[in-house]
Amino acid sequence: MTLSTSDRADAVHRMLHPRSIAVIGASADLGKINGRPLKHLVEKGFEGRILPVNPKYREIAGLTCYPTIESLPEAADLAVVAVPASEVIATIEALAARGIRAAVVFSSGFGEMGAEGRAHEDALAQKARDCGVVLCGPNCLGFVNAFDKVYATFSQYADGETSAGPIGFVTQSGAFGTAIAALVRQRGLGLGYFINTGNEADLAFSELMGKVVEDLRIRVVAGYLEGLGDGDALVKLAERCQALGKPLVLTKVGRMAAGARAAASHTGALAVEDAVFDAVIRQYGVLRARNEEQMLDMLEVLSQPRAAEGNGLGIATQSGGAGVMMADRAEEVGLSVPELGAAARARLAEVMPAFGAAGNPVDVTGQFVARPELLSESVVALMADPNVHVGIVWLQLMTAHVDKLVRIFEEIQSRTTKPVLVCWVAAPAEALARLRGLGIVVYTAGERAVEAAGALVRYHAMRRQLASSASKNPPAAAPRSPQEAWRNGVQGTVPAAAWLSAAGIPMAPVALAANEDEAVALWRAAGGKVALKIESPDITHKTEVGGVLLNRDDEPSVREGFRQLIARASAADPRARLHGVVVQPMAAGHVELVMGVQRDPIFGMVVMVGSGGVLVEVLKDVVFRRAPFDQDEALRMLGELRMGALLDGVRGRPAVDREAIASMLARLSNWAFGMAPVLAELDLNPVLVGTEGPVAVDCVMVFDDQRDRG
Amino acid sequence: MTLSTSDRADAVHRMLHPRSIAVIGASADLGKINGRPLKHLVEKGFEGRILPVNPKYREIAGLTCYPTIESLPEAADLAVVAVPASEVIATIEALAARGIRAAVVFSSGFGEMGAEGRAHEDALAQKARDCGVVLCGPNCLGFVNAFDKVYATFSQYADGETSAGPIGFVTQSGAFGTAIAALVRQRGLGLGYFINTGNEADLAFSELMGKVVEDLRIRVVAGYLEGLGDGDALVKLAERCQALGKPLVLTKVGRMAAGARAAASHTGALAVEDAVFDAVIRQYGVLRARNEEQMLDMLEVLSQPRAAEGNGLGIATQSGGAGVMMADRAEEVGLSVPELGAAARARLAEVMPAFGAAGNPVDVTGQFVARPELLSESVVALMADPNVHVGIVWLQLMTAHVDKLVRIFEEIQSRTTKPVLVCWVAAPAEALARLRGLGIVVYTAGERAVEAAGALVRYHAMRRQLASSASKNPPAAAPRSPQEAWRNGVQGTVPAAAWLSAAGIPMAPVALAANEDEAVALWRAAGGKVALKIESPDITHKTEVGGVLLNRDDEPSVREGFRQLIARASAADPRARLHGVVVQPMAAGHVELVMGVQRDPIFGMVVMVGSGGVLVEVLKDVVFRRAPFDQDEALRMLGELRMGALLDGVRGRPAVDREAIASMLARLSNWAFGMAPVLAELDLNPVLVGTEGPVAVDCVMVFDDQRDRG
Repeated sequence: MTLSTSDRADAVHRMLHPRSIAVIGASADLGKINGRPLKHLVEKGFEGRILPVNPKYREIAGLTCYPTIESLPEAADLAVVAVPASEVIATIEALAARGIRAAVVFSSGFGEMGAEGRAHEDALAQKARDCGVVLCGPNCLGFVNAFDKVYATFSQYADGETSAGPIGFVTQSGAFGTAIAALVRQRGLGLGYFINTGNEADLAFSELMGKVVEDLRIRVVAGYLEGLGDGDALVKLAERCQALGKPLVLTKVGRMAAGARAAASHTGALAVEDAVFDAVIRQYGVLRARNEEQMLDMLEVLSQPRAAEGNGLGIATQSGGAGVMMADRAEEVGLSVPELGAAARARLAEVMPAFGAAGNPVDVTGQFVARPELLSESVVALMADPNVHVGIVWLQLMTAHVDKLVRIFEEIQSRTTKPVLVCWVAAPAEALARLRGLGIVVYTAGERAVEAAGALVRYHAMRRQLASSASKNPPAAAPRSPQEAWRNGVQGTVPAAAWLSAAGIPMAPVALAANEDEAVALWRAAGGKVALKIESPDITHKTEVGGVLLNRDDEPSVREGFRQLIARASAADPRARLHGVVVQPMAAGHVELVMGVQRDPIFGMVVMVGSGGVLVEVLKDVVFRRAPFDQDEALRMLGELRMGALLDGVRGRPAVDREAIASMLARLSNWAFGMAPVLAELDLNPVLVGTEGPVAVDCVMVFDDQRDRG
Repeated sequence: MTLSTSDRADAVHRMLHPRSIAVIGASADLGKINGRPLKHLVEKGFEGRILPVNPKYREIAGLTCYPTIESLPEAADLAVVAVPASEVIATIEALAARGIRAAVVFSSGFGEMGAEGRAHEDALAQKARDCGVVLCGPNCLGFVNAFDKVYATFSQYADGETSAGPIGFVTQSGAFGTAIAALVRQRGLGLGYFINTGNEADLAFSELMGKVVEDLRIRVVAGYLEGLGDGDALVKLAERCQALGKPLVLTKVGRMAAGARAAASHTGALAVEDAVFDAVIRQYGVLRARNEEQMLDMLEVLSQPRAAEGNGLGIATQSGGAGVMMADRAEEVGLSVPELGAAARARLAEVMPAFGAAGNPVDVTGQFVARPELLSESVVALMADPNVHVGIVWLQLMTAHVDKLVRIFEEIQSRTTKPVLVCWVAAPAEALARLRGLGIVVYTAGERAVEAAGALVRYHAMRRQLASSASKNPPAAAPRSPQEAWRNGVQGTVPAAAWLSAAGIPMAPVALAANEDEAVALWRAAGGKVALKIESPDITHKTEVGGVLLNRDDEPSVREGFRQLIARASAADPRARLHGVVVQPMAAGHVELVMGVQRDPIFGMVVMVGSGGVLVEVLKDVVFRRAPFDQDEALRMLGELRMGALLDGVRGRPAVDREAIASMLARLSNWAFGMAPVLAELDLNPVLVGTEGPVAVDCVMVFDDQRDRG
């Protein structure tokens, strides 16, 4: 009996909020994997029913122990399965027979053990689906719902203090995830959920996180990923987080993962897994943390409720050098450190000592120890400036003044409505604990505080941006499959250009000459210099076989060029099918871009734009987005190009029309989205941009129909 | 009486290692600035004589207090001066009169207070020089020599535990420096010296650090800088640290410092303060830490005695994901994570559990808790591999197993001679303290451990490199001033090219035509296409006035070109002096570079090489070195160019001869070094590189003689 969508959702909900938990294979040794959940549930005060199952015992830890699953007095909401791998499938069957709809499977010995283990895991997943049991794991540490004192886990994390808080954390890795959970605890941030998904035979990251983020007590969610199967599910999760106003922070390892994907196009070669992942999650408002420290830094600032309404950072410091270091970092992470307005300057001049600096950064010097009002008044004045949207106060050591400083920071928080972060280097442990106890965000290094402020600003900027674009985002264009018959593989230049032109994408005119005479006629019709390019379904990269000739402008050279191209192509590949030579008026443009589309196995159609020419290969200056997207999003892509300054004219060259390029990209994304089942890769390289706007000069289009496959 | 060099050195030595210390303006309130040194000296057990001076007291803290400096019973080795700013100069005079040769001046109210304060500070410096007193400060926290229990400071740092250790730290900032000192203490690394240089009216960073690094008990030195006056002194310090085999780690704030230096050349515009500082200190083997956390991470790994003989990193981990994250970071910081050899693989297969990963990274899983030999045997096997030069062991939490793990790590250290770092995420505080107590280097985040390993590897690679190049480095060429008469300002193209050619720098031929007929004659002599360029001392950037015409190859177009250039130049600047038109055969080359020289106010002559064309402006892909340097160093410069791949041929273009480019750079550096007093700026832009080697096509040379100035 496979579960319906709503029954499945209900089963997952009850799994995470069970009124009763059966522990299959429970051990009387509460230190063992199959004893630890019982210990935690009892000691930490789970209020539902705990039902150990093991024929060897009548009672464990004061709880009645049942000999078999079928002898259980009720259909528990959740079963914790800690039996040998070989018994797991039979256990799932027995759970289903007893009416139990959710299981957390600790047992290892599945996909992580090679081919045989993978087959075993597939069989387990099939069994769970067939008999209507949702399954977390196998090979997982289980999960904690700290609000409801559910400890379906054997993670070390549960050994310590586990009071609930506003952060939900889901991890694919048990060991690294446990470490992150412990770091959350160290910072006193409070973890509402800790879920380790293990091998994800059934329930995967996005589905479980989707449940967590719906909990009203959760304010921020974080995930640790090692791999991803279902890109659409992650995109939906990200959209839901956006709708709920709950930040989603992800760390994913494998940034440098091999880019050696076999691809006919540059786009394909550049669209390596991590580059696409990174681009797509940002597109949907996810914050990516590069490692666990950055994740924690982000979680801390995102757990506090105040938003940053702009990117202006106000800095108050006890050290001029620390102010310079933070201002430098601010610039790097996209924050401004604005000049202050007259009102703030006047107020600061009033309260500052003669030798302090009353600009931004404000250098209050160490004098505030003697005169606490110095710090509070100057920070309040700084935060009152309309161009300051988030503040950082830097100080160090001050072991003897913790009391006084905690009171000052409390006062500052109450006298501004903007977020103010504390950066306390070499802070006494007591100071950190007390400030965090008051809900005050505190870091112990200046650059990290600035990076966290940057994440807060980026998050709220993204929210405003997504909110504004949601309203005007056009619906995706209906799929527009090519009209004519087509086949898999490299498409002809002429039909490919025609399809793209029909979609509103500016293409340089192309025409195919089957012989010299036709080539000459096409040159005459062009009325000026032409390029000649070999046309063959077997030659994807024309320049590599010398298959492109430029600037031909008289009959003899057009004729000679035709013959030359045919000869070169035959020499390079005697079996290549040669359809003739494409004749194309020479296009002009002083900026060279490359655009492309790649069908990504995780996220579907992704569109790329990059700096063209030699740069695309050496510099890899490219930007990706998941299709479809609108012109505003395309403009943001252009803004992310490192060589973007070339668009604005350098060395006296005129600027080009970013809107026109963005429009081309948006149209390309709509077309690619519609072509999703058929299009595998597309390169438009080069796209030349002159004063007339962009035009794609060459095109490689590869089809690979997925519609009749699994 | 100004001190001789050796007397000055002696006075500084005695200042840092005093047998007696006078405290001028001593307070009986031991919590005040002028009481705290007494308190620390007494409580921490300074073994020399402590001599408070204050007419108000007969005794302070059980010590005889003297009414005046002249009444002191001996000429103390050091005086701590904590009197109002207005009394400092008179105090220095009195110290000199009493034969006291060294003072630490806490007093503020000098250069940090604006123009008047600066004048006061200049007068103080002059007085100190005139009467032969060396002076640390003013406006400083003083210093600690923890070995000899010298606490000539009022820094908060001295309030806590201050046991001595192998690190010497000198800081320009008091507040930030105190924070860093406290962080060193938190890590248990041990600070031998803590010196705050304050306003550096006399003793500056490099001179004091030069003394610290000579102390045999010091193994590593670190500095925090906010600005730098004397580049030569820093270079000498760096060379001395290299000779002693003691790493020098520097943090300098102001990375983004405004690059708005007025300059006639691209080189000048790009040679902003921080870029030059960064390049030069690396050239001389200094490690730069971007912030205080990175500084501490570097100090920790550099304090341990083992060297890394290569860049191979071995990783053992309890989490596959952590292994991937660290391997990714390793690649980014220039480490390799090598495949293991057969012997290591075989040994690992023997000791690893079935589901672990026996490659590199080695995933030992959490099983080692039950079987400690699993961790020790696998790490020992990993470290025995000849391609592994440094190791990292990653683990997390393990609160219940600290004892066992500390023993395992101790065993591992004793069974390998290579450096092994521990990365323990969410470590119990006890574990960190115990490991550090055993001299084991431990981090709490994986990426930071990898960065530290990278610093260790870089340091030892640099030592090997400097050792090998020291032997073959040619002596700097003797200065070769231009033969002919010269004047300040932009130099003529023809003589400039001649000077550079004479120095062995390949220059495209140039000749000046004063009129059309001469231009035609020069075109004929060239025997092919020529470029025409306006020649005027008043026009530095020829292209900006349309002053360059390319590919002229017949008499009418040469004549017309001549007239056109003169007309355009006159239109652009009617008062410009026009010397004629330079006629130059068209140069070929498929790679475009830019080279240049800039006289840096701190470090003297610096040489730049960069990617040419549009790239130099948009990408700022440039590399600097202090002149002179040899060809090997020049090759390393080319290796640092982001666009360096262009040199190796892309898209079917041939590779160019890196040696030839490096030789040109080395010659340029020698020439520039010789020209130091005269040459202000030089641009060779473009330098075209083809199969024949590099040739400079255009040249802007600016003289500004310094020899007759202060």
